[in-house]
Amino acid sequence: MNRTLINELEEGKKSKISGWAKKIRDTKYMIFIVLEDRSGSIQVSVDKGTMQDLVEKLEGVLPDSVLEFEGKMVLSEYVKQGGKEFLPTDINILSSAEALPLEENANIDTRLDYRWIDLRSKKNNLMLKIQSEFVRAMRQYLYDNDFTEIHTPKLIGTASESGSEVFEVDYFDRKAYLAQSPQFYKQMAMASGLERVFEVAPAFRAENSNTNRHATEFTSFDLEFSYPENLDDIMEMEENLIIAGLTSVKEKYESEINDIFDTEVIIPTKPFPRIKLQDLYKELHDRYGYEIPKEDIGDMNAETEKLTSKYALEVHGSEFIFVTDYSKTKRAFYHMRNEEGTPIGYDLIWRGTEITTGAIREHRYDILKKQADEKGLKKDVEFYLNFFKYGCPPHGGFALGIDRLTMLLLCLPSVKEEMFIFRGPNRINP
Amino acid sequence: MNRTLINELEEGKKSKISGWAKKIRDTKYMIFIVLEDRSGSIQVSVDKGTMQDLVEKLEGVLPDSVLEFEGKMVLSEYVKQGGKEFLPTDINILSSAEALPLEENANIDTRLDYRWIDLRSKKNNLMLKIQSEFVRAMRQYLYDNDFTEIHTPKLIGTASESGSEVFEVDYFDRKAYLAQSPQFYKQMAMASGLERVFEVAPAFRAENSNTNRHATEFTSFDLEFSYPENLDDIMEMEENLIIAGLTSVKEKYESEINDIFDTEVIIPTKPFPRIKLQDLYKELHDRYGYEIPKEDIGDMNAETEKLTSKYALEVHGSEFIFVTDYSKTKRAFYHMRNEEGTPIGYDLIWRGTEITTGAIREHRYDILKKQADEKGLKKDVEFYLNFFKYGCPPHGGFALGIDRLTMLLLCLPSVKEEMFIFRGPNRINP
Repeated sequence: MNRTLINELEEGKKSKISGWAKKIRDTKYMIFIVLEDRSGSIQVSVDKGTMQDLVEKLEGVLPDSVLEFEGKMVLSEYVKQGGKEFLPTDINILSSAEALPLEENANIDTRLDYRWIDLRSKKNNLMLKIQSEFVRAMRQYLYDNDFTEIHTPKLIGTASESGSEVFEVDYFDRKAYLAQSPQFYKQMAMASGLERVFEVAPAFRAENSNTNRHATEFTSFDLEFSYPENLDDIMEMEENLIIAGLTSVKEKYESEINDIFDTEVIIPTKPFPRIKLQDLYKELHDRYGYEIPKEDIGDMNAETEKLTSKYALEVHGSEFIFVTDYSKTKRAFYHMRNEEGTPIGYDLIWRGTEITTGAIREHRYDILKKQADEKGLKKDVEFYLNFFKYGCPPHGGFALGIDRLTMLLLCLPSVKEEMFIFRGPNRINP
Repeated sequence: MNRTLINELEEGKKSKISGWAKKIRDTKYMIFIVLEDRSGSIQVSVDKGTMQDLVEKLEGVLPDSVLEFEGKMVLSEYVKQGGKEFLPTDINILSSAEALPLEENANIDTRLDYRWIDLRSKKNNLMLKIQSEFVRAMRQYLYDNDFTEIHTPKLIGTASESGSEVFEVDYFDRKAYLAQSPQFYKQMAMASGLERVFEVAPAFRAENSNTNRHATEFTSFDLEFSYPENLDDIMEMEENLIIAGLTSVKEKYESEINDIFDTEVIIPTKPFPRIKLQDLYKELHDRYGYEIPKEDIGDMNAETEKLTSKYALEVHGSEFIFVTDYSKTKRAFYHMRNEEGTPIGYDLIWRGTEITTGAIREHRYDILKKQADEKGLKKDVEFYLNFFKYGCPPHGGFALGIDRLTMLLLCLPSVKEEMFIFRGPNRINP
C-alpha cells in the first residue's frame, strides 16, 4: 500500500501513514501517539485491550521515532486535534530514536550542535520552506525578464578582492582561494555578452568576527545586467525583485508567518525612498541628535543603519530605503564614479540592516585600472582587468544575502537561527 | 532615450540600440557594422558623405567594441541580413576593444585562457542559456512536487566521504575541507523532517585526473526524499525530472539545437529500461563479445558505459538505461543493501556516460555504522552517523552533474567546452 499524507486521509478508508511520533502518551487503556508528517499531524489511538501486538511493538519506543501505521482515519468528537484520529491495525517501527539530547529551550550553541534535531521544529521547517519560496519567486522574476542563471567558480587563482579575508585552499602543488563573491565572474559574463545573469551560490568570508549577521559561508543571490541607463535602473530591478519575492511569500505563508513568527510581511511600494549619505547624516543629526563617528564618515555602521530605518519608517512610511553617494574611500574600486568622483552605487537598508550593495560598474579599462591602482590592487586583479580590454558593455548589479534576508523577514535574532547550518570562526561541525 | 532590443525595432521609429560591433567593413562610400545584442543583430549603415562626425568617431574602432547608436531602422531590399538596416544619426563608443587575442579556431586551452571572449560566440551563449532553462525546468518540477530548496555547507569539519580526494582549507587555527557533495547534509535534512529537498550547488573533487568529463569543481543537482516505497520510486522521480527538463529545453530551443549543435533533443518515454549489472555483463558479452576487466567486476568503466548505451538503443530503443545491483564493494557505505547484501541503488547511463548514482539510503543507525566500519570509516563519519540516532525516516535520492548533462545534451566533446569556466588540476585561472 502506498503512503497517504496525513492531511489527505479520507474518513474510513484503509490507508498507510508514516511520520514522526512527536508525542507518545501511555494511559491505562490506550496509547495515544501524535504522528506528524510534512502535511500535518494526527492522533493515533491504540486500544490496549484489542491491539496487543501493536502494544508490544510500541514497547520502549521513544518520541521522535519514525513510525508507519496501517489503519483508517475516523472522525471523533473526543479528539481535540482536528476532530480526527487514526485507528491502526498494524505498525512498523521505521526508525527508533534514542532519548533526545536536546531540550526545547536550549541555547543556540547547543542547538547548533544538534542542528538536525533543532530543525525538526515546526518553526524551523517552516523557515526553510519560506526561504525556498522567497528564492523561487525571485528567480522566477528574473527568468521572466530574460536572465540566464550561471555557475561561477568558487575556487579561484588569486586572493582578488581583499586578501586578508579569503580562505586559502591546498590546490595540488599550489594555492587556490575561495571566492568571497561571484562579483568578478558575473562581470565576466557581461564581457561574454550574456547581458543579464544571476547566480545563487555559496560565498566565503574568512572574517574572524562574531555578530548576529555574519557567517564564514553564506548563500549569495547575485545579479548583473548590461546597459542600465542609470543607477535608478539597478535600484528598480532590485525593487521589483524584492516585491516579487515578498508577494509570493505573503500569498503562500501569510497566516503561518503571523502565527508562528509573530510578524507581518509588508509588501513595499515603488519607488523605495532614496537619500544621499550626506543628506542622511544631516537628517539623523537633526532628528535624533546622531553624529557619525569620524572613522565611519563616508560610510554607515550598525547604529547608523538602525537609525536610517527609523527615519525611513517615520518620514517615508517605508521599511526599505536606498542610501546613495558613499565615499570612494569606502567603496570597492570597481564602482563607477560620477564627475565629482562619487561612486554611483547604493546600499539598501531593511529593518535596520544593510541587505545589499549595488552599483554601476566601471567598464572602461583605463579608468578601472587607475581605480585599482589607487587602492593598491595590482597583481591580484590583473586577470579581472583583462575582462575589460576587448570590449565590455556598461553594466551594474547587486547582491542579496538570502540568509540575512530571511532573518529580517521572520524577525529572527541571528543568521545562526536561520541558516540550514551556520558556519562561523568557531563553528564548522556538524 | 531608452535602449530598444534589436529584434524589437519598429520601422522608421527613432530608437537607440547598443551591442557588440561583430563586423566592421569600411568601403569607399559607406561603413557597414554588424551590431549584435542578446536579441539578434542588424546591419548599421553609415553614409560617409553625410555622416562625417560618425565616421570620425568610428576611426580606429575595432570589432568587438561595444557601440550605441541612435537613429532608425528601415527596410531595405539590398541588405541580406533580414532585409533591415539601421541608419544612425549619432554614435557613442561605450567600450573600445583592443585587437582580439583569440582566433576562432584556437585550441581549447587557449580558448580557456580567454574564456570571456570564447563565450561570446552565439554557440556558447546559447549553451549557457540552454543549461539555465534545463535547470529551471527541473527545479520547477520539484517545486510542483512539494520539494524545498536547501543550501548546505561547503566548508566541512572532516574529510568525510573519502579523504584522498578532498581539498583542504586553512580555517582560522585549524583545517576544514570542501564538500565533495551535499550527500551527508541532504540526508541530514531528512533527519530534520523536511521530507523532500533539493540543492543546486558547487561540489569539489581533488582528483588529479584529466578526462573529458571530470572537473575539480562542478555544479551538482542533488535531491533526496523520505518514504520511498522502493527503488522504483527513486528511479521514477529521476525519470520525471529529466523528462521535465528535456521537454522544456526542446520547446524553447529545438531549432537552435538542431541548427547550431547539429543534434536532436529526444524526450525519453517512461519507464526507462532497467537491467541488473550481472545480466548486463551477459548481454554485452553475448552481443558484443565484451568481457569486463577483473578489477571492474561489480562496477562499470568508461567502455562498459559506452556499450551499455549501444545495448539500450539497439534492444530497447532508449537513450537512457538504469543499471542496478552493483557490488557492495564498489558502492558507498550509506547505500541500503537487500537481503543478499546487494546495494539497493543504480547508475543511470545516457549517451554512453554515467550521469547519476541513485540509491535508497541506510537509515538504521546500527546497520549504517556496521557498513561504515566495514569500509574502514571511523572518526570522519561519526558526525554523520549521529544524524540517524534520534529518529530518521527511510529515504533515498540521487545527484546529477548539470555540466555533464548539458555536455551530453548538446553533444559537446568535453565539460571544458561546457562549463562557464572549467576548473581542473592545471586550470584555476582566469
